[in-house]
Amino acid sequence: MRRSIATVSMSGTLRQKLEAIAAARFDAIELFENDFINFNGSATELRAMAADLGLGIDLYQPLRDFEGMPDELFRRNLERAERKFDVMQALGAPLMLVCSNTSPQSQGDAERSAAQLHELAERAARRNLRIGFEALAWGRWVKLYAQAWRLVERANHPHLGLILDSFHTLSLGDDPAGIKDIPGERIFFVQMADAPLLAMDVLQWARHHRNFPGQGQFDLENFFEKTLLSGYDGNLSLEIFNDVFRETPNRRTAVDAMRSLLYLESQVRRRLERLRDGTDQDAPSDALREMADSTLRRIELFDPPDALPLGGIAFLEFGVDDEAAVALGALFEQLGFARAGRHRSKAVTLYRQGGIKLIVNAQPGSDARARFDQQGPSVCALGLVTSDPARAANRASALLSARYDSPRGPNELRLPAIVAPGGTVVHFVPGAAGDVGGLAADFVPEASEASRTDAPAACGLQAIDHIAMGLANDQFDTWMLFCRAVLGLQPGESLELADPFGLIRSCGLANAGRSVRMVLNVSLSQRTRTARQVSATGRSGASVHHIALRCDDIFAAMTRLRANDVRFVPISGNYYDDLLARLDLDEPLVRRMQALDILYDRSTTGEYFHAYTEAFADRFFFEIVQRNDYDGYGAVNAPARMASQEQGGQR
Amino acid sequence: MRRSIATVSMSGTLRQKLEAIAAARFDAIELFENDFINFNGSATELRAMAADLGLGIDLYQPLRDFEGMPDELFRRNLERAERKFDVMQALGAPLMLVCSNTSPQSQGDAERSAAQLHELAERAARRNLRIGFEALAWGRWVKLYAQAWRLVERANHPHLGLILDSFHTLSLGDDPAGIKDIPGERIFFVQMADAPLLAMDVLQWARHHRNFPGQGQFDLENFFEKTLLSGYDGNLSLEIFNDVFRETPNRRTAVDAMRSLLYLESQVRRRLERLRDGTDQDAPSDALREMADSTLRRIELFDPPDALPLGGIAFLEFGVDDEAAVALGALFEQLGFARAGRHRSKAVTLYRQGGIKLIVNAQPGSDARARFDQQGPSVCALGLVTSDPARAANRASALLSARYDSPRGPNELRLPAIVAPGGTVVHFVPGAAGDVGGLAADFVPEASEASRTDAPAACGLQAIDHIAMGLANDQFDTWMLFCRAVLGLQPGESLELADPFGLIRSCGLANAGRSVRMVLNVSLSQRTRTARQVSATGRSGASVHHIALRCDDIFAAMTRLRANDVRFVPISGNYYDDLLARLDLDEPLVRRMQALDILYDRSTTGEYFHAYTEAFADRFFFEIVQRNDYDGYGAVNAPARMASQEQGGQR
Repeated sequence: MRRSIATVSMSGTLRQKLEAIAAARFDAIELFENDFINFNGSATELRAMAADLGLGIDLYQPLRDFEGMPDELFRRNLERAERKFDVMQALGAPLMLVCSNTSPQSQGDAERSAAQLHELAERAARRNLRIGFEALAWGRWVKLYAQAWRLVERANHPHLGLILDSFHTLSLGDDPAGIKDIPGERIFFVQMADAPLLAMDVLQWARHHRNFPGQGQFDLENFFEKTLLSGYDGNLSLEIFNDVFRETPNRRTAVDAMRSLLYLESQVRRRLERLRDGTDQDAPSDALREMADSTLRRIELFDPPDALPLGGIAFLEFGVDDEAAVALGALFEQLGFARAGRHRSKAVTLYRQGGIKLIVNAQPGSDARARFDQQGPSVCALGLVTSDPARAANRASALLSARYDSPRGPNELRLPAIVAPGGTVVHFVPGAAGDVGGLAADFVPEASEASRTDAPAACGLQAIDHIAMGLANDQFDTWMLFCRAVLGLQPGESLELADPFGLIRSCGLANAGRSVRMVLNVSLSQRTRTARQVSATGRSGASVHHIALRCDDIFAAMTRLRANDVRFVPISGNYYDDLLARLDLDEPLVRRMQALDILYDRSTTGEYFHAYTEAFADRFFFEIVQRNDYDGYGAVNAPARMASQEQGGQR
Repeated sequence: MRRSIATVSMSGTLRQKLEAIAAARFDAIELFENDFINFNGSATELRAMAADLGLGIDLYQPLRDFEGMPDELFRRNLERAERKFDVMQALGAPLMLVCSNTSPQSQGDAERSAAQLHELAERAARRNLRIGFEALAWGRWVKLYAQAWRLVERANHPHLGLILDSFHTLSLGDDPAGIKDIPGERIFFVQMADAPLLAMDVLQWARHHRNFPGQGQFDLENFFEKTLLSGYDGNLSLEIFNDVFRETPNRRTAVDAMRSLLYLESQVRRRLERLRDGTDQDAPSDALREMADSTLRRIELFDPPDALPLGGIAFLEFGVDDEAAVALGALFEQLGFARAGRHRSKAVTLYRQGGIKLIVNAQPGSDARARFDQQGPSVCALGLVTSDPARAANRASALLSARYDSPRGPNELRLPAIVAPGGTVVHFVPGAAGDVGGLAADFVPEASEASRTDAPAACGLQAIDHIAMGLANDQFDTWMLFCRAVLGLQPGESLELADPFGLIRSCGLANAGRSVRMVLNVSLSQRTRTARQVSATGRSGASVHHIALRCDDIFAAMTRLRANDVRFVPISGNYYDDLLARLDLDEPLVRRMQALDILYDRSTTGEYFHAYTEAFADRFFFEIVQRNDYDGYGAVNAPARMASQEQGGQR
């Protein structure tokens, strides 16, 4: 099974695209016609360039509006095809994609269409080329793969086969179940595209908003499983029209592309194994189990270590300089954290409260300090609890995450670690290592908290509820795929929130146990606070924007935090009046919230109380949250926070 | 007739919005609920702030999903309404907008809906408030203004009236003709929104892509005319949900907003005058002529000087320093221009060829030189031919363009001039002033071209065909409105073109006589060449990106230009092979084009031949064009140019 990608899926000149595609270890490309037409070299030169990079040119798509045409137009189409066959032979491209006709001049006569496709295939055969016919979702007569397949069958030529594209099937809500009944050798090529579910014209959707498998909301695992069960073993290819990818640095896009295929393959491998073993929910027939078994034996689907359950966010590490270390430490103490240890050899301090551990790293020469120098104070690393850190890192590595190896001092623990997109380090921490999450070895404990007279009183904060990332626009899909494929998180709803200076798109992801939650925020505007913070990260394009800390009694916690002079974002009285108008809430409760600047949201399952601190050095802030059977992030209240931040917090 | 705007239409905090709205001389605002809920002050404080700025709060929209609800939800809705009435009284807002219900819990029973609206109006009446009911295009039961009007009639309460929103009517393709038969005093408020024609879900279209009248493609003049003929004389208001406006500097947005209303009023005034005078195409009935007459006598519709026909682009002026003046002059001579004069007192040189005049201005202390200092070499001014320059400038001024007064030396001509968005100066040049367009007075002629032995031979360039502007994303709507309202140009089709690093949106505008053409190009990506050039203009966000010069025989012209060593953007041989495959063209003709890097396009009416020079100082370039009954701009070929430019021009 060859992995390939269409050149339209990424930015740059054709040479730059091929170099990026080769670097991500694809086997081949689909050549997008305009890329070739505008290429400053001949077909032969392009073929040599691709070959030098180890890439085949597996597909070319130079014909549109072909089948079912009146005779005169058909004659012209054949002339066009012969000229394009010349190009394909010079390119060494064996397969031409012909998608279903959209022209108002086309005729719905199946006999005519089949005859014309037959003639095209016959001419291709003379040159040892093949034709693949694909149903376009907005084709005039042929929209569904089943219709395209009937035409291919009717045309009945060995050099004519079917091409499948998941977008065209799933965007119309068509069921891919029938694919497994098509003879696999009659399917010549398969294109796999995901997409967010958008309520828009399917052509516009297709041309601007596709993305890689795992970045959108289609059920591609089902589609790909059915394709494999047909016996298909040709290319697994990506043809992605996406406005953002057109401007994203193409090395990153190519890695995302390959990661998306590896992830899809590994997920479908597991599905097929369950089918074969009869451990799927539905009881499969023996024939189906047989098909799954033969598919698994025939196709080398990618097989990384499985994602392990995560047990929580063990710690966050902040990169600072000496001055910021003092200021941040002071803020942590106001928030009720106690200094729990100093690093045995470095300028690193550990703070603790409840199950939360925060590390402040000002060590000269460290990566944390280097990150401070580039971006100012920021979260440079986080720890995720898992039962088998080495295995978690191996999975990440198999799915193309870079490993992170820090310099290690004497007696220091090395945690398996990887680099998230944009440079944040993710350490995997053994769950069995007790409540210090494996960090004990690195830190010399402070005098016990009880014995320190100046130790702050805890404020009741128990755990890191979630971390919210501020992302550059072109980082959103990259992070979505990273969180799903590498970390095994599942996305919730995607929302748009109004900042006074533009829209923010926000999507939360969580693990099944809800002990690890991340929110991805991207500013669609260049002028919001989020955009300014992301822009301060330079090329990284990603930084922790806020950190939500969970407590059991937010009224008690907020009372203590305010007593410690923690400054919170003030919320307008109008907000509370509106709460009373909208929801059936006790007025005294609402007035208590108002007194403490606590915001409120309600879902069908539960309630969410939360408040925001003012930002630290204008870079990140904290959210204090209490969750009562509530699974969201209070997004409805984000505009109140953003408006208050822009109004300078006066009341 | 009060002019107002909804606060959701612009960026910023509520205070900043009100200040910008007041500065653009609106009479009032519509208060968007979230702006109030997140405002750091009370309703009373907001009322005082608006009053200080001379703004009324004419409308508030705090209720959704009101009518046609089951009894229990209706009871809750009334409680909600009473709380919102409290707010309205404190705000001094006399009118509440209620839009048609979208809730799945709503019932289609007209009797129930009417009764509930009646009860709401009765409660409003007790507080001397009024209710306006509006059909939302995606309402569950009520989508059309005629349906909303039937409910209002049925509810039959003097404090309940109809609210119209052009978006909801025109987005559904509904005919506004029936509006004129609704009693005007029963229409409580009118919202006017334009929009580009997009094939997408109407709710998403409405929430993200509306724009100001004259910026989109709706027939708002017809809609507004029908509204006025009803006898309506309430607010003319703007409620614009637009993602880009949310991040555009709000002073500019507010001026655009007011300009759009003034333009709409003036256009509809002319329609009504034609109706009254019977000079319209259709022969109106006496009753209709009577209605038009009474409307014109009743409403003070804005009445600027009419737009005058433009007679061409008289000249372009380039801001440079001494070094760039030499380089640019050398390029002009290669292009076949002759030095035709030196300014009598300044470091300014005039170049001429055919009917084209180019001015190079390096005068220290001049605005042109200041522009060079900010942005590098650029077109800083242009001249448009018109029969009455003072009147043209007066129209621009009435439509809120800033006038431009340059310092004038002795014996210099002062042309009436205005400032286009972003700072380019537009001079109006009298058409009667002969072929030097009124500039003769300023320039001392060079020795006649024939007598100069080193004078370059002309290359056959005859006229400025069009100028293409590179615009920042948030400048597109501003420029569209400026070109239509101030210059009287009409837009053609809007297209998206693929640059190797992102998409470019492009729209051409022209006058009726096609002697003035402008193309607006905006890069949706931050990484294209266009985006980089626009970004070099700093806050201006607008600069001339290329200048198209027309000739009668492009093969002869290109041969001469190449002989003069003008460098052209090389075009791939694959482009010409594809031309032969796509179109029925003579192969020898195509090979002649190929030899000269001439691109080709064809429309239903004619043909277009064109070629691009390499960029001057990486800032702007020239296009050589030949038009044969062709009305476009060869946009289909722009990707070939952009790809070649990125490939560094090697062949």
